[in-house]
Amino acid sequence: MLVVMRQGASEIEIRGVVRAIEARGFKAHPIPGVQRTAIGVTGNRGAVEQPVFESLPGVLEVIPVTHAYKLVSREVKPEDTVVRVGNVPVGGREFVIAAGPCAVESLEQTLTVARGVKAAGARLLRGGAYKPRTSPYAFQGLGEEGLRILATAREETGLPVVTEALDAEGVDLVERYADAIQVGARNMQNFSLLRRCGKAKKPVLLKRGLAATLEEFLMSAEYILAEGNYQVILCERGVRTFSDFSRNTLDLAVVPAVKAVSHLPILVDPSHGTGRRDKVAPMSRGAAAVGADGLIVEVHHEPDTALSDGPQSITPAAFAALMDELRQIAPVLGRTLPRPAVSPG
Amino acid sequence: MLVVMRQGASEIEIRGVVRAIEARGFKAHPIPGVQRTAIGVTGNRGAVEQPVFESLPGVLEVIPVTHAYKLVSREVKPEDTVVRVGNVPVGGREFVIAAGPCAVESLEQTLTVARGVKAAGARLLRGGAYKPRTSPYAFQGLGEEGLRILATAREETGLPVVTEALDAEGVDLVERYADAIQVGARNMQNFSLLRRCGKAKKPVLLKRGLAATLEEFLMSAEYILAEGNYQVILCERGVRTFSDFSRNTLDLAVVPAVKAVSHLPILVDPSHGTGRRDKVAPMSRGAAAVGADGLIVEVHHEPDTALSDGPQSITPAAFAALMDELRQIAPVLGRTLPRPAVSPG
Amino acid sequence: MLVVMRQGASEIEIRGVVRAIEARGFKAHPIPGVQRTAIGVTGNRGAVEQPVFESLPGVLEVIPVTHAYKLVSREVKPEDTVVRVGNVPVGGREFVIAAGPCAVESLEQTLTVARGVKAAGARLLRGGAYKPRTSPYAFQGLGEEGLRILATAREETGLPVVTEALDAEGVDLVERYADAIQVGARNMQNFSLLRRCGKAKKPVLLKRGLAATLEEFLMSAEYILAEGNYQVILCERGVRTFSDFSRNTLDLAVVPAVKAVSHLPILVDPSHGTGRRDKVAPMSRGAAAVGADGLIVEVHHEPDTALSDGPQSITPAAFAALMDELRQIAPVLGRTLPRPAVSPG
Amino acid sequence: MLVVMRQGASEIEIRGVVRAIEARGFKAHPIPGVQRTAIGVTGNRGAVEQPVFESLPGVLEVIPVTHAYKLVSREVKPEDTVVRVGNVPVGGREFVIAAGPCAVESLEQTLTVARGVKAAGARLLRGGAYKPRTSPYAFQGLGEEGLRILATAREETGLPVVTEALDAEGVDLVERYADAIQVGARNMQNFSLLRRCGKAKKPVLLKRGLAATLEEFLMSAEYILAEGNYQVILCERGVRTFSDFSRNTLDLAVVPAVKAVSHLPILVDPSHGTGRRDKVAPMSRGAAAVGADGLIVEVHHEPDTALSDGPQSITPAAFAALMDELRQIAPVLGRTLPRPAVSPG
Repeated sequence: MLVVMRQGASEIEIRGVVRAIEARGFKAHPIPGVQRTAIGVTGNRGAVEQPVFESLPGVLEVIPVTHAYKLVSREVKPEDTVVRVGNVPVGGREFVIAAGPCAVESLEQTLTVARGVKAAGARLLRGGAYKPRTSPYAFQGLGEEGLRILATAREETGLPVVTEALDAEGVDLVERYADAIQVGARNMQNFSLLRRCGKAKKPVLLKRGLAATLEEFLMSAEYILAEGNYQVILCERGVRTFSDFSRNTLDLAVVPAVKAVSHLPILVDPSHGTGRRDKVAPMSRGAAAVGADGLIVEVHHEPDTALSDGPQSITPAAFAALMDELRQIAPVLGRTLPRPAVSPG
Repeated sequence: MLVVMRQGASEIEIRGVVRAIEARGFKAHPIPGVQRTAIGVTGNRGAVEQPVFESLPGVLEVIPVTHAYKLVSREVKPEDTVVRVGNVPVGGREFVIAAGPCAVESLEQTLTVARGVKAAGARLLRGGAYKPRTSPYAFQGLGEEGLRILATAREETGLPVVTEALDAEGVDLVERYADAIQVGARNMQNFSLLRRCGKAKKPVLLKRGLAATLEEFLMSAEYILAEGNYQVILCERGVRTFSDFSRNTLDLAVVPAVKAVSHLPILVDPSHGTGRRDKVAPMSRGAAAVGADGLIVEVHHEPDTALSDGPQSITPAAFAALMDELRQIAPVLGRTLPRPAVSPG
Repeated sequence: MLVVMRQGASEIEIRGVVRAIEARGFKAHPIPGVQRTAIGVTGNRGAVEQPVFESLPGVLEVIPVTHAYKLVSREVKPEDTVVRVGNVPVGGREFVIAAGPCAVESLEQTLTVARGVKAAGARLLRGGAYKPRTSPYAFQGLGEEGLRILATAREETGLPVVTEALDAEGVDLVERYADAIQVGARNMQNFSLLRRCGKAKKPVLLKRGLAATLEEFLMSAEYILAEGNYQVILCERGVRTFSDFSRNTLDLAVVPAVKAVSHLPILVDPSHGTGRRDKVAPMSRGAAAVGADGLIVEVHHEPDTALSDGPQSITPAAFAALMDELRQIAPVLGRTLPRPAVSPG
Repeated sequence: MLVVMRQGASEIEIRGVVRAIEARGFKAHPIPGVQRTAIGVTGNRGAVEQPVFESLPGVLEVIPVTHAYKLVSREVKPEDTVVRVGNVPVGGREFVIAAGPCAVESLEQTLTVARGVKAAGARLLRGGAYKPRTSPYAFQGLGEEGLRILATAREETGLPVVTEALDAEGVDLVERYADAIQVGARNMQNFSLLRRCGKAKKPVLLKRGLAATLEEFLMSAEYILAEGNYQVILCERGVRTFSDFSRNTLDLAVVPAVKAVSHLPILVDPSHGTGRRDKVAPMSRGAAAVGADGLIVEVHHEPDTALSDGPQSITPAAFAALMDELRQIAPVLGRTLPRPAVSPG
């Protein structure tokens, strides 16, 4: 932490700050400059004490230096974390695709989509049983019935299941039926939910909030790790800006930014990240090219009649075509992608 | 809803869209233009079906017309709603101030601050027993012990208590001890929490999320009303922008915007809205001047040693000075403000 | 400037940074911490050298400490600057209102509006002869003819004129006909234009860009002062966010932020800042209450037929009503406002 | 255009709007809905008249339907535009890389970098002779001397030159010495400059502003085309958000968005778009993968001593490695990239 004094701060004020620093058991390192004095602080815990010093007489501003996250940090654990969802490793050499419908609508729909995406090379099945919807009057998901359908689809296809939980009870159920618990963007700072996920036996897919900084995103992951669950996968899904052409602004630069400071794997969600079907394939290719560990994509066999988020879902055929493109891009970054199933003939 | 066709969309495409509209039981109203055709849709429910039409051949875009909120809308209830927190009416003639510490730290601290703000004219006591903190390592609040302290402070001062709940169990407790349940900005789209609040017997203070549009803000309130609790107070507390001089950007224009479309009262939180003590008084005056129904302000008798958000708390003395200014501004908008307690002498 | 080393940076890396600092003639002040070392830099000029150090081996980040602006800074000139536009002092005790049509359309229109706003208490006449329009096909202003009309309106009413220049030739003309040169938000970082304004004999009204930080806003003013023109008035007119209810987000907190670090006066433009007529009065009151030095407001006697920005213009009658409200709010901040003209009877 | 009436708008109000529409020579198409009436408007010119109707009694809102841009629109010209910079086609099959130093510092520096990037496969040389700098005290470029150096480097290497002009006089000079005129992000809505570029004989590279919507971006291009210069290349270089890890947020989704509505080519600037050297390669790969027509990249042989923007410049060696990756990604989108020069031996 660095405490910057105002120009013309008096000796008494400077000594006051030094004393305040030392009173908390930290060390003060005054740096007298030509224009003003700054005081380095060491021995403190992250940015927690920043407020205190900001209000002392003569202080212009306090600049935090150390980041508050620890367990998620690459400084603590230099090597990449590989999270296993069912039997699928996320964050390793393979570029992993989770695909499926936005919402689980029926067993038939879910099976149709699951088989389609599996044939094309998806390794995980995504699908919502509990849907966080802006409107209380919109379809809210099938609930436990939806989870049962997902479990059946997994038995049929072998694809491990990723699905969202909205609250503590939801985590109980998702833990029982699925292979990874998704925390949605709107709940990224629902700290009760994060803590509950930190006690879960299943990995957690944590989506970045619409206005979350990298620091906040990682601190939310830290909540989960701090409770003992180290199996966390991050997911970029777009931030909110003034954009007039996409629902959100997919911030692909967060991928190398995460890789630089954290050991956790990160996926990209091009479906929510753009909100428009015609941008899903380009941004999926972009995500692979910037170095993401995989994708989570919405696929629906009849997107125009989907109960939820139809306009951002692509068809199984479009998904298969996208997979072909990804198979060419992934190797440039030293990644593999499974081959599509060969149709018997 | 208006479906806009591409330039040069064929007759077949236009008829396809008309048929799709009618197939859902709505009415189609084609408007042939010089450059392109648009098709009005009536009989639909809000924006829910927008996705479906966006993907039909020949469609350029679909423009929603009706807002999705109903119960919070002034079209449904033209007259202002007055919410009673304890015996204090919010949204009526009085400009109401909720004040108190960011976090409840001890009985003594809470009582000291509560007495101070009451003497200056505050009508409600605010203070956090459960604190949503970015870092899992920061002070998280005293929990139920904090709620007991707040209840004691209410008995001592007569000030009804507003305090935050972070989850369903928190609502149970806050409902028991306090007079209004606060839902924080980070939980504005925690729909499980909103639904639980919709069943609560106490009024709800709903804070706007950091990236929430007005539509989303009102839809979150709608969740609460839709469950049967009509006692909702909105609260603007700043949105996230690129600002380099305040923690958030306090969006005071949302006050007249809410007043235009909704009957619910709206407070302003200048403390979180700026994050800087020296901006609390100016933005509080600004909030009164734009027509807010009141404020929720952080006050601490020793802000520099506060366990939480010290740099945005003002002292009881600064608060009393602010109240004096507000007493001069509020009448310009036809509002009253209680006089300060007269010290006996 | 503070150079923060990575955890585990080697002694050699630290010495390398120290040497790089000293090689540029600055002083290095290493601060060894428990987790990592930081190195204070003194003797440097603002943030200019930041890039250089950021790339040295072992460096985590470089944190600038000193702001790059000088002449606009309150540290250099503690007392408020009062800028005279014609005979009207801006930044002194008086809360000054500039009012008039968005665009000058005709002599009659301009005179009608000018007389109306003068009668209500406006002290400056605003109106565009050169209009920066998003579309090349929209009305672009009357040009020099518009400037002549404004000059005539000044002779008739005695109101000094503020009007926008879009380029160097425009400044030549505006300088000749008007009393203050407006630099629009879109040109806030048109450095050629700023330099030309710095050589002008007339004061400059500099509008904040839609995505400008406070630092950038003040640096743009610094461009003008650095060329020798110290007569600069700042103007907040809204920043761009995701707002769905106003064209821009009027950032009133920038007013106290400017006052804290700069001696320059600052006005608020509630017309462009909201883009909606019904928000002009509330946000004008808000601007007065936060401590702005005045307003610049669009008034049109027939806003619905205005050639430009009609929906954000208010009528002379609405303007007079607003002035009445401002007369009650301004004194709370120790400000005066001229009385309206008494109609002879 | 669609005029939406308030719920309960009277017949008289509706007829008033219809009459106002017809009075302007447009056609009105009332669409009576269950909840409210909307009135389609045809025959109007884009969004220009929107303001007028918004203020009529009973009107809730006016929704523009037609976009205001014409010449840049794919509806007007369906096939892709290929712009020739010198002899290099931009927007065709080749993925084109412009590379070079941020600022021209000396002939030697420029030649060294130009030879390096040419050897690696760059097709255009970029470099600033006029630098728009936030601070008036920062290095502002060598001016005409810089242009002469660029011209010499072109003669030496054969690489056509792209360089920025800041004002009308700058365009005169750039037109004389260089092969394409760059309009920077800060000048995207400097309409005088755009008009001057519209009369230029050389192609224009137009960078997106930091807060520009797609509509505004294309309207600025429209200014240039409207003056007769159809040789416009768009360039995404990041928008401003709350990001805490990159200087700007590179909005790669704008690439497919532009491709969908406009025939103009679009490049991506990963250097300014991220502001950080370590993100240049990932975001360059991402730009190629989403379908951009090329890149404009800052390369410096000694980035740590660069006079401008060093921390976002990469070395010639890093650039050559990036080119190798791009050569593998481009073909996935049917693009070619020139091979690197073979070193003789």
